[in-house]
Amino acid sequence: MLLETLRKEVLEANLELVRRGLVIYTFGNASGISRPDGLVAIKPSGVPYECLKPEDMVITDLEGRIVDGRLRPSSDLATHLELYRAFPAIGGVIHTHSRYATAWAQAGREIPCLGTTHADYFRGPVPVTEAMAAAEMESDYERNTGLAILRRFADLDPGEIAAVLVAGHGPFCWGASATDAAHTAVILEELARMAYYCLTLNPAAAPLSAAQRDKHFLRKHGPAATYGQK
Amino acid sequence: MLLETLRKEVLEANLELVRRGLVIYTFGNASGISRPDGLVAIKPSGVPYECLKPEDMVITDLEGRIVDGRLRPSSDLATHLELYRAFPAIGGVIHTHSRYATAWAQAGREIPCLGTTHADYFRGPVPVTEAMAAAEMESDYERNTGLAILRRFADLDPGEIAAVLVAGHGPFCWGASATDAAHTAVILEELARMAYYCLTLNPAAAPLSAAQRDKHFLRKHGPAATYGQK
Amino acid sequence: MLLETLRKEVLEANLELVRRGLVIYTFGNASGISRPDGLVAIKPSGVPYECLKPEDMVITDLEGRIVDGRLRPSSDLATHLELYRAFPAIGGVIHTHSRYATAWAQAGREIPCLGTTHADYFRGPVPVTEAMAAAEMESDYERNTGLAILRRFADLDPGEIAAVLVAGHGPFCWGASATDAAHTAVILEELARMAYYCLTLNPAAAPLSAAQRDKHFLRKHGPAATYGQK
Amino acid sequence: MLLETLRKEVLEANLELVRRGLVIYTFGNASGISRPDGLVAIKPSGVPYECLKPEDMVITDLEGRIVDGRLRPSSDLATHLELYRAFPAIGGVIHTHSRYATAWAQAGREIPCLGTTHADYFRGPVPVTEAMAAAEMESDYERNTGLAILRRFADLDPGEIAAVLVAGHGPFCWGASATDAAHTAVILEELARMAYYCLTLNPAAAPLSAAQRDKHFLRKHGPAATYGQK
Repeated sequence: MLLETLRKEVLEANLELVRRGLVIYTFGNASGISRPDGLVAIKPSGVPYECLKPEDMVITDLEGRIVDGRLRPSSDLATHLELYRAFPAIGGVIHTHSRYATAWAQAGREIPCLGTTHADYFRGPVPVTEAMAAAEMESDYERNTGLAILRRFADLDPGEIAAVLVAGHGPFCWGASATDAAHTAVILEELARMAYYCLTLNPAAAPLSAAQRDKHFLRKHGPAATYGQK
Repeated sequence: MLLETLRKEVLEANLELVRRGLVIYTFGNASGISRPDGLVAIKPSGVPYECLKPEDMVITDLEGRIVDGRLRPSSDLATHLELYRAFPAIGGVIHTHSRYATAWAQAGREIPCLGTTHADYFRGPVPVTEAMAAAEMESDYERNTGLAILRRFADLDPGEIAAVLVAGHGPFCWGASATDAAHTAVILEELARMAYYCLTLNPAAAPLSAAQRDKHFLRKHGPAATYGQK
Repeated sequence: MLLETLRKEVLEANLELVRRGLVIYTFGNASGISRPDGLVAIKPSGVPYECLKPEDMVITDLEGRIVDGRLRPSSDLATHLELYRAFPAIGGVIHTHSRYATAWAQAGREIPCLGTTHADYFRGPVPVTEAMAAAEMESDYERNTGLAILRRFADLDPGEIAAVLVAGHGPFCWGASATDAAHTAVILEELARMAYYCLTLNPAAAPLSAAQRDKHFLRKHGPAATYGQK
Repeated sequence: MLLETLRKEVLEANLELVRRGLVIYTFGNASGISRPDGLVAIKPSGVPYECLKPEDMVITDLEGRIVDGRLRPSSDLATHLELYRAFPAIGGVIHTHSRYATAWAQAGREIPCLGTTHADYFRGPVPVTEAMAAAEMESDYERNTGLAILRRFADLDPGEIAAVLVAGHGPFCWGASATDAAHTAVILEELARMAYYCLTLNPAAAPLSAAQRDKHFLRKHGPAATYGQK
């Protein structure tokens, strides 16, 4: 992929977060990777969205070394890189502080799969990480955040559950591209919101059965999908 | 009705859902029927709303056979068709995942008639279907969803209660036309929202008396209606 | 006041409700009165806001007889008229089904004066009417709604509490003019919203002391007011 | 600083509150100070935001004497002045009745530091003042409001906690400039909102550890900050 194309797509993914109300001011960050050359484009740190141009996206390698760009990369870069290294099928990562998903992360609760809207996108609850130890914060905090996500996904398939809540922090999402990851971030916020309404209305609401959950997930994902146009 | 007119009305009903914030991305679907020729126009599957044109609406007969159109119909087509076959007076059907109505569906609770705003549109609670059996999901899932709605309406008048919550899924609404059904979907979301606020504020809030409920419903519906212009 | 001026002001008050998100479709209605000639201008029944023109406002006398206008008046006219007859200082009346105020009305709870934002506008809780008897609904329902409000205000000053929640129905507000009444309706919705958040967060939250309540109310109202420009 | 520059910045800070939905009608007020000459620019009392021009900002000295301007200053001026006198490092003050922050103030509860979004801006809970005594309301109410804030900050660093909730009233925020203070007011509302969702979902949600809170706060503030561009 041409770096210019990647930068434009990553910028667009960042702007989608603004358009959908998931971020304000300098909150959040989106990145994308070109797998053939192992290069990542990511939002620069602390630059307001309305000022961002494609050339502001910072290009790094998978070790976080800056390859191109005048600005400092997002402070969450090391978390993105852990995900890119561990999940070879993904092409984009998003981090936001969107209101409802972050509230769940702060509450330390996974988002249960309460309905078909959720099952259309995630084949199970959106999990929450374990709290990090003090030592993990002292150095390499952002990298350790990524490792906490990976520990949580030891028994989960990142292709079936494309998001996580970092406890006390907020959501990270991923997808085949930065565009896909942004789409997932928007959907996640929508699901977090409906689940909040549902459980404050009926704290005993039961999750969807595995049969109905899989019916919906597999209608939209995998080789037997029937949703959408061919 | 000319198919061209039907397609335009169905497209407009779909777009009304976007304008009112009931759907995002490819969520939801609206259809309309031309009763004289038994033809249904429905949104195509998985096409973003901003790209939809009248000619994208798929025309099928009441058995779901595609009569005209280049695209695949909404995956919920079979549910719409069950409603058209069972409720001969209706001319439009809407399905959304609107936030509050879906939260009630996920909570597995009917929306009680808590006030006159509700009674102006529905002559009683908006009911919720029974959970579907695993066998009903294995094949003909969308048709079985329609049958679950019909079972729930065995003793209800679809002219007096023009919406249902499919448990764990979301609302379906109907009306004399696709336009009317979309109007009902917007109102339903508004009522679901107010009922959520009401019951989280006062879980013991009582439904409206039957006398006041009927006063309001019949002020706007039926031969003795006095609301609106002649 | 010229009827033309009154019609324009009443139309503007109706449109303010739309702009502030208090009404959708044909919900709600605003009226204003010209006291010297005892004529009331009110929104017509069931006409969408985007179609309203000044000449659509219906002119009636205080007995509800149509004096000018081609359309039928709002079905809530008789409620407005009761308020105009009983509260001689008011010049405008508003009825909405705004979300939070209606939720309180449905919950059957008065809105307590929990903070200075409330006290800046209302010198005490916003009261809720008693439930109406079945006989009151059989005939003259809308007039009886007005009488239920007046019974609730037997010991209240409509100049200090310029709004009421009709139980199971929604808010009515009033003011020196239709413009003022619309302003009060917007503020009431804001207060209802904050009180909802406050009491769902802390059900034991205490009302403001009478001293602080009066300090704020009298800073903005009455002869000793210091707020605003001279 | 030129007074003209100060007036423009203060006007812009006021308008930012409107753009971000923190204020409606005449709610709220922003001020800024030019430290070298000890002059404060503040929004005039009760003037709608859409009418405000730079020259409407009222200039006073630190004793509240009007030095320049045709209008009366905000009724909360005396509160702002107490903060300017006590906190020499601040250059701007904001007061709003934003919905969620005000709900917390009405609930009489501090906003706990539940997540990293909070810790990125405040090094601890956003505190709430003690209720004021009746005598404090009889005279110098607005100045006494300022003194209640200062009592609450006897053991707090206004550079680390740049906001307070006045019990039963609403938030006051400050910063290096009026622009900064407005930014803080927007963030505070966002944090108040997420904390509301979090604690209504899980009333037992625990605050962030001091280690993680400081990690985030110090990543963005102080000499070791690494966030943003150099």
